[in-house]
Amino acid sequence: MRKIAIDAMGGEHAPEAIVEAVLQAKVKLPNTKFLLFGDENKIKKLLADNSTDEQIEVIATTEIIQDEDEPVRAIRRKKDSSLVVAARYVKEGKADGLVSLGNTGALLAAGIFIVGRIKGVERPGLMPTLPVKNSNLGFNMIDVGANAQAKPEYILKWAEMANFYAEKIRGIKNPRIALLNNGAEYDKGDDIHKEAYQLLKESKLNFIGNIEGNELLDGKADIVATDGFTGNAVLKNIEGTSSVIIHLIKDSLLNGSLTTKLGALLIKSALKGIAKKFDTAKYGGAVLLGLNAPVVKTHGRSDKRAIYYTLLQMDKMIEEELIKLFVNDFSKQD
Amino acid sequence: MRKIAIDAMGGEHAPEAIVEAVLQAKVKLPNTKFLLFGDENKIKKLLADNSTDEQIEVIATTEIIQDEDEPVRAIRRKKDSSLVVAARYVKEGKADGLVSLGNTGALLAAGIFIVGRIKGVERPGLMPTLPVKNSNLGFNMIDVGANAQAKPEYILKWAEMANFYAEKIRGIKNPRIALLNNGAEYDKGDDIHKEAYQLLKESKLNFIGNIEGNELLDGKADIVATDGFTGNAVLKNIEGTSSVIIHLIKDSLLNGSLTTKLGALLIKSALKGIAKKFDTAKYGGAVLLGLNAPVVKTHGRSDKRAIYYTLLQMDKMIEEELIKLFVNDFSKQD
Repeated sequence: MRKIAIDAMGGEHAPEAIVEAVLQAKVKLPNTKFLLFGDENKIKKLLADNSTDEQIEVIATTEIIQDEDEPVRAIRRKKDSSLVVAARYVKEGKADGLVSLGNTGALLAAGIFIVGRIKGVERPGLMPTLPVKNSNLGFNMIDVGANAQAKPEYILKWAEMANFYAEKIRGIKNPRIALLNNGAEYDKGDDIHKEAYQLLKESKLNFIGNIEGNELLDGKADIVATDGFTGNAVLKNIEGTSSVIIHLIKDSLLNGSLTTKLGALLIKSALKGIAKKFDTAKYGGAVLLGLNAPVVKTHGRSDKRAIYYTLLQMDKMIEEELIKLFVNDFSKQD
Repeated sequence: MRKIAIDAMGGEHAPEAIVEAVLQAKVKLPNTKFLLFGDENKIKKLLADNSTDEQIEVIATTEIIQDEDEPVRAIRRKKDSSLVVAARYVKEGKADGLVSLGNTGALLAAGIFIVGRIKGVERPGLMPTLPVKNSNLGFNMIDVGANAQAKPEYILKWAEMANFYAEKIRGIKNPRIALLNNGAEYDKGDDIHKEAYQLLKESKLNFIGNIEGNELLDGKADIVATDGFTGNAVLKNIEGTSSVIIHLIKDSLLNGSLTTKLGALLIKSALKGIAKKFDTAKYGGAVLLGLNAPVVKTHGRSDKRAIYYTLLQMDKMIEEELIKLFVNDFSKQD
């Protein structure tokens, strides 16, 4: 039986939305067990009749890592926090993967220091799946901020791991891989990106060259490799820019004339279609690739539906033995 | 009389839109002379009766630098191109500032190698003015790609120059300056950004700390300082993300049901209001700060109106003697 360790105390709607998502996922995934780490009383109350379900186990913990906690210190001091105990279960082989909605830095630290890195991966990379305008497949971007400082060989390794993910989990054959850079030509960028270009070109990956910041949502690449500093700025900027534009549109429709308001009513369903296209919940959370087990961070604001998809995503990574693929590939490289 | 040198052959609508913009600007700016560099026959035909106007001078050139030309090589080889001759006029003091809509790299190269750097500025920075959601003032971002490789002291100097620009040209008192980084805390980022944070904090500038990629359009800062690699990716990403979202909305309204189409008609004026808010034409073009004269790049797709505003912007920089302010300030620093 596959086992998913879930930090039930992270995120804005914890533990309610997390318990609800587990109850939905367990029906879809009858061969998977869900380990919920956190406030036993609260969780069992929410589980009600399901608290004796053999697919669900509650592990009582007494501490919670807050969003404002300094990540590395929190991991060291809050030894009985839902996150740390869940990570330890994965480390000890009592669970196969870790999901959290809480403090991103703390999850990265728990992943690196407790779950541990795969031999041959110096730096794990954080990778969300993002929408593109012309397909429902989206694209992966790695690294979006697990590392502030990058080296060309890190970028290559992130691309290699993302390649397995796109093939096995997203079902994309021979994924197109691009490098985020400040121009199309091979000699663009700073030294790190020039060298990363060469490494990607010489690799076995389906490298299609550089991609620029304005082309990301166009669907030209299945995977965009980038240093974590730029990736972080760009990921946040996609969120910020789209939210400002959508906010302005809503605002001007709601505060407009009667004619505008009537028009807004009439286009409601069309706008919902767009929201659906940009619905990233179905892709699951951001994966921290390069660890001894799958570790996934889902947005703190995630509702039941987004958490449900994250559980499916995690289950698939365990089923496909994604980590084994990395380990086999990297041992061949040595 | 102030004199603006204009590369009349760059951009998609050259020279028509450029000549039209000059004819509009000369009325608004009776004390300014416009030097048009390019195909004499074409330009004079467009000027018609105005070709003998004392506010306008046409300087015949025989070559054009294309968008696909390699910048530094183009500057060296196409010695009789509209851009190179215009830049030489500025260098020789026969014009006070340079405007181009053409190849950005070639303009950067012409700025640095022909117009020349101010003593004390190792690397000029490229700085557009971008929109924010809650005001018409927008914000400046520097550098957005004149440099692929950055140093902390470059970032400080860019912020200092942008500070003068925001005060004198945009009329903002004590501009709020932020550093684009991957988190709010002072110790975030790679080594370059950690050090840039300290330099900005110790400077006389009104430094308000770090800003993240999702906050750029929120209007929290009047100036965002960034390394040119990240700035380039983020600037392009703002363009790409907003264009994809607006494209999706237009698309779903035009291809929707009859109800949707009717609704689209009714909200038309409200949507125009948003477009107006995000109308960056009124801010002018991107300024290359750190040279011996003002140099401005306007988007190659600019229409008459955007070029008109760029000419007003350039005129104001000359009138306010922006470059003198830099030179005085930097000589005090030594």
